[in-house]
Amino acid sequence: MAALPHCPLLAVSGLLLCCLSFSLSIPDPQLREALMQLEASMQTGGQMVLTDAEQRLDALLFKMKQEEMKGEDFPPAMHFFRARHLINNSPIFSLLQKMPKGGALHIHDFSMVAVEWLVKNATYRPNCYMCSTDNRSIRFIFSSQWPKALPHCSPWVLLENLRAKMVNTTELDVSIMGNLTLFTYEDPESVYPSQDVVWDRFEQAFLAVWGLVTYAPVFRDYYYEGLTQFYKDNIMYLELRALLPEIYELDGSTHDIRWTLKTYQDVTKQFTAEHPDFFGARVIFTVHRGVNLTRMVEVVKEAIQLQSDLPDIMAGFDLVGREDSGRPLWYFREALSLPVKKGVTLPFFFHAGETDLEGSDVDQNLLDAILFNTTRIGHGFALLRHPVAKSMSRKRGVAVEVCPISNQVLKLVKDLRNHPAAVLMSENHPVVISSDDPAMFGSSGLSHDFYEAFVGFGGTSSHLGSLKELAMNSIRYSSLTPKQKEKALALWQKKWEKFVSENVF
Amino acid sequence: MAALPHCPLLAVSGLLLCCLSFSLSIPDPQLREALMQLEASMQTGGQMVLTDAEQRLDALLFKMKQEEMKGEDFPPAMHFFRARHLINNSPIFSLLQKMPKGGALHIHDFSMVAVEWLVKNATYRPNCYMCSTDNRSIRFIFSSQWPKALPHCSPWVLLENLRAKMVNTTELDVSIMGNLTLFTYEDPESVYPSQDVVWDRFEQAFLAVWGLVTYAPVFRDYYYEGLTQFYKDNIMYLELRALLPEIYELDGSTHDIRWTLKTYQDVTKQFTAEHPDFFGARVIFTVHRGVNLTRMVEVVKEAIQLQSDLPDIMAGFDLVGREDSGRPLWYFREALSLPVKKGVTLPFFFHAGETDLEGSDVDQNLLDAILFNTTRIGHGFALLRHPVAKSMSRKRGVAVEVCPISNQVLKLVKDLRNHPAAVLMSENHPVVISSDDPAMFGSSGLSHDFYEAFVGFGGTSSHLGSLKELAMNSIRYSSLTPKQKEKALALWQKKWEKFVSENVF
Ligand SMILES: [Zn+2]
Ligand SMILES: [Zn+2]
Repeated sequence: MAALPHCPLLAVSGLLLCCLSFSLSIPDPQLREALMQLEASMQTGGQMVLTDAEQRLDALLFKMKQEEMKGEDFPPAMHFFRARHLINNSPIFSLLQKMPKGGALHIHDFSMVAVEWLVKNATYRPNCYMCSTDNRSIRFIFSSQWPKALPHCSPWVLLENLRAKMVNTTELDVSIMGNLTLFTYEDPESVYPSQDVVWDRFEQAFLAVWGLVTYAPVFRDYYYEGLTQFYKDNIMYLELRALLPEIYELDGSTHDIRWTLKTYQDVTKQFTAEHPDFFGARVIFTVHRGVNLTRMVEVVKEAIQLQSDLPDIMAGFDLVGREDSGRPLWYFREALSLPVKKGVTLPFFFHAGETDLEGSDVDQNLLDAILFNTTRIGHGFALLRHPVAKSMSRKRGVAVEVCPISNQVLKLVKDLRNHPAAVLMSENHPVVISSDDPAMFGSSGLSHDFYEAFVGFGGTSSHLGSLKELAMNSIRYSSLTPKQKEKALALWQKKWEKFVSENVF
Repeated sequence: MAALPHCPLLAVSGLLLCCLSFSLSIPDPQLREALMQLEASMQTGGQMVLTDAEQRLDALLFKMKQEEMKGEDFPPAMHFFRARHLINNSPIFSLLQKMPKGGALHIHDFSMVAVEWLVKNATYRPNCYMCSTDNRSIRFIFSSQWPKALPHCSPWVLLENLRAKMVNTTELDVSIMGNLTLFTYEDPESVYPSQDVVWDRFEQAFLAVWGLVTYAPVFRDYYYEGLTQFYKDNIMYLELRALLPEIYELDGSTHDIRWTLKTYQDVTKQFTAEHPDFFGARVIFTVHRGVNLTRMVEVVKEAIQLQSDLPDIMAGFDLVGREDSGRPLWYFREALSLPVKKGVTLPFFFHAGETDLEGSDVDQNLLDAILFNTTRIGHGFALLRHPVAKSMSRKRGVAVEVCPISNQVLKLVKDLRNHPAAVLMSENHPVVISSDDPAMFGSSGLSHDFYEAFVGFGGTSSHLGSLKELAMNSIRYSSLTPKQKEKALALWQKKWEKFVSENVF
């Protein structure tokens, strides 16, 4: 970077403030250039030094981006459901798929696997019953006996019977699939006109999936398949937010929460053994923010126990569900203070600021998450509007888990160029990119969200250095120990070099 | 504000950074409260001390806002064309109409007056001809003789003849009106599907208005009517961005640019004499950014001359037209450097950052505006994505003229809660609220834009102090001399006290 003539720089908490207090006359082209470079160097990846090969790949990427921006339809400005086929055909997207993206740090347990798999695999297993709810959703159960009717649901049908009577089951399968995801080929603005509607459909789809994925044999296979799909998307590590429900068997018997967590550990070990270049996975135990304080105290105690018993697989604790309709963190302060009071470890990974209700109680979640010493912030969509929380997040290295497609589908922002993370990245605020609920949104692994971030957030200002820093951030801000991080970074670096050499000519 | 226990504060360029480097244990409710208050105090108006009466009005306003947020439709999240009738019925809006808002600092010359006036008044004058263009717009001319046909336009019709043949002219008038504004009762998303379409219609409407408002008798009356409408909206001062075109008479003769500027001065004097509590108006001479460098050099020279000859009415200079398709400021650097080179005064008031093309040449306008020592920034929509330009704007007190409805109608942002000014205001960045082209958008004076800013930007965090600071900013950041500002502030203060006492019970 060129020196700034007559321009004393003050480095303040990572933000370089240029003290141009002298009155300018005619802009000095050299000063202008230096200020432009200063700004470029402040962004995520702005200080990354690139090798020769990386520079060549970066030049290629820049050309591809310029091509991409010429098109009439600019995917990040469109709803992802409409943009997906454009993105899938984009050469930038192909490159991002191949790119080693590091870890996926904000993924929910039952939205890991593309819904095709659930329909084609899970619902074709024997003993799978389905019913249709009054509000146009569906429910599933596996059972050795004919199951008891559910309230507000049609009588159960055994899917194998139903399918046996059909000449062609395609239509049925497509209709089931439509109930397990928000993704639609119809006009998303008409199907989901408001946040209330889209959250309602989200919760219904979640309940539809529930009976399938909490059945023990499916549960194991679903998670294994999830790891496979992420691995294929060139993700080497996962932190999974998991509800750890009681998993059931065909006879209706259930396993306890510890069994669920241990199963995650077992399957992870198996997968890692079979894929030595996959680094591993850890679980963030989550509970719905709709519970009351008494229940939350119990759950936190359980979480503390699990954290102490199974520290390898267990990364920490979080609350899930729509913030706007749930209870704020401060309501749960007694429960959330328990680990510190007891002098035990329970790292927090709070969702916070996934709201546009500025000034509401829920809007204080950001500050409270930080005061409760959260390790990262899930979403942090409202962070820019909270300068104190923002500067604390930066100072303490509390990374924001940015999930662009999720925020768009759940109607916090329409044009992703206006996503607040574009600003966070222009200041190299600690961020990682994640996909939240890829199966629910029809996205895959992290590549679609990386595309939105790379093409949408920074325009032509972001570059290969930005991508590199985002990938490295996902290890840097993970819950791994410093030693593990070092090992993971070395593994990632090898993958990265291979990626660069294979894609530059 | 309560003191922050154990929390050393660093005041850095107006931004208070709280150095909480110690590890937190259980959040101290007192510390939490102090941080919340710190954040509240950092926003626009956050340090405003309110009188008893103001506090009572503020409490009323808070209740009104809570009511407003309960509704199913939240106006700032909707397109203004759909939201207008809701806003017009809002008690907050009524209060904002009555509120003395100070000055309107970003208003364009030919979009000051509601289009009803143009149709009902201007087009009913004698000798008014109209033709219809190939691309579904209209053009006007006043002429003592039958005017020569325009290319790409139907033969001229004399409106008095046309109307004389009609039983009912309502439909014609409504159709003319529709051509002079972007406002529509149809679905705005369908009528204006893209930025290209809406800017094209914007430019067509502008050309439609042109022949009416550049006719000398209409020109005077239009400006007088504009002052009247702003005055009625409780605005006491105006800085008008004016193209200063050659104004024509019925016989086709034209006046020079100096005549146009002097007419603004004369009408302003007349209006101020008739309304002693109106403070005045000044003109920012504007030229379209589509011109080439040679022409720009000429125009800047003209501007320098006018600035020196008529310094009372002339405030400075600016470039207009869509940034994305125009030439960047840096292209004009030779012309824009002239005043400094010649050692003469020509204050700049540049539009900059009214774009979402991050990383493009046009996107450098923000930094260049500041390097050319701009007095204010028009729009600055992209400012958050330019941390260097942003910190320079703050340090040098270069206020951002925020025009929420304009940015929404011209499709930079959909939900106004995501407008970048929400962030600027959370940090008390110097901003003023303006309406850009109220007639084009179907808004009036400043009240609709103040509504969007007050209800949309800050949620329940913004309050009467925010409104007070915004109004005061419009004088503080005006082009007036320090003495004039003092006088204007005293006049505003009297109006404000009256407003508070009349609206609190
Ligand atoms: Zn989430
Ligand atoms: Zn403007």
